[in-house]
Amino acid sequence: MAYDDNNIFARILRGEAPCVPVFEDAFTLAFMDVMPQADGHVLVIPKEPAATLFDLSPEGAAASIRSTRRAAIAVRDAFAAPGVFVGQFNGAAAGQTVPHCHFHVIPRFPDAKPRAHASVMEDSAKLRAFAERIIAALPPA
Amino acid sequence: MAYDDNNIFARILRGEAPCVPVFEDAFTLAFMDVMPQADGHVLVIPKEPAATLFDLSPEGAAASIRSTRRAAIAVRDAFAAPGVFVGQFNGAAAGQTVPHCHFHVIPRFPDAKPRAHASVMEDSAKLRAFAERIIAALPPA
Repeated sequence: MAYDDNNIFARILRGEAPCVPVFEDAFTLAFMDVMPQADGHVLVIPKEPAATLFDLSPEGAAASIRSTRRAAIAVRDAFAAPGVFVGQFNGAAAGQTVPHCHFHVIPRFPDAKPRAHASVMEDSAKLRAFAERIIAALPPA
Repeated sequence: MAYDDNNIFARILRGEAPCVPVFEDAFTLAFMDVMPQADGHVLVIPKEPAATLFDLSPEGAAASIRSTRRAAIAVRDAFAAPGVFVGQFNGAAAGQTVPHCHFHVIPRFPDAKPRAHASVMEDSAKLRAFAERIIAALPPA
């Protein structure tokens, strides 16, 4: 899959499109999914332009999972979630909808079925409130 | 979640239980899932005793995703898979069935629905044949 510089995550990384950020480091950005599968759904992306995990450098993958782990701990604690799903989809056949490698971090509860992937746009004030809770629960980098 | 030294992946790591290996390095082991959701379903585990991604060290997480990336490339190429799902489940509420952190690598095809998680035991000769195909497609570490 050729990398498209105009995909929405590339535009977010360049500051050309908005996002509700959670945290950022030299290699990665974590922000709220605008079409969340559950309240507290965070996306972690490498800054490296890679369409999939296949195309990402081993170093970019390592930085991404470090940030994903950090986001997962914060999401668990912010939402008192008994489960956290981490998913990374490569190719449309695996459910990938944006051609920039990304890691989903989604809180899970025993009786709550997650909403469909990329289905309903969330209210941005609600996303900002969720982000504040997650930021307050972030462990050290 | 307290770590249980007798979980099946801990026993595999100690050589006390069998597995169909794909590759191993100082920090991780990749092997065939015995109850695959699709042909070519590989599991990647850190050697570090951690029940979840929350409990795993950042270094252990980095080593795990490097091996997961390598397995994902090989699974894609060995099965000519247009999609590869990478999933890492924390807590029973997120679908975790073995209390040792693990990454699922599952080939996906447009019209094939994956089988249920941890449902039907696969024939081990078949698993060995799949492992051989994946090993032949492994990129450099």
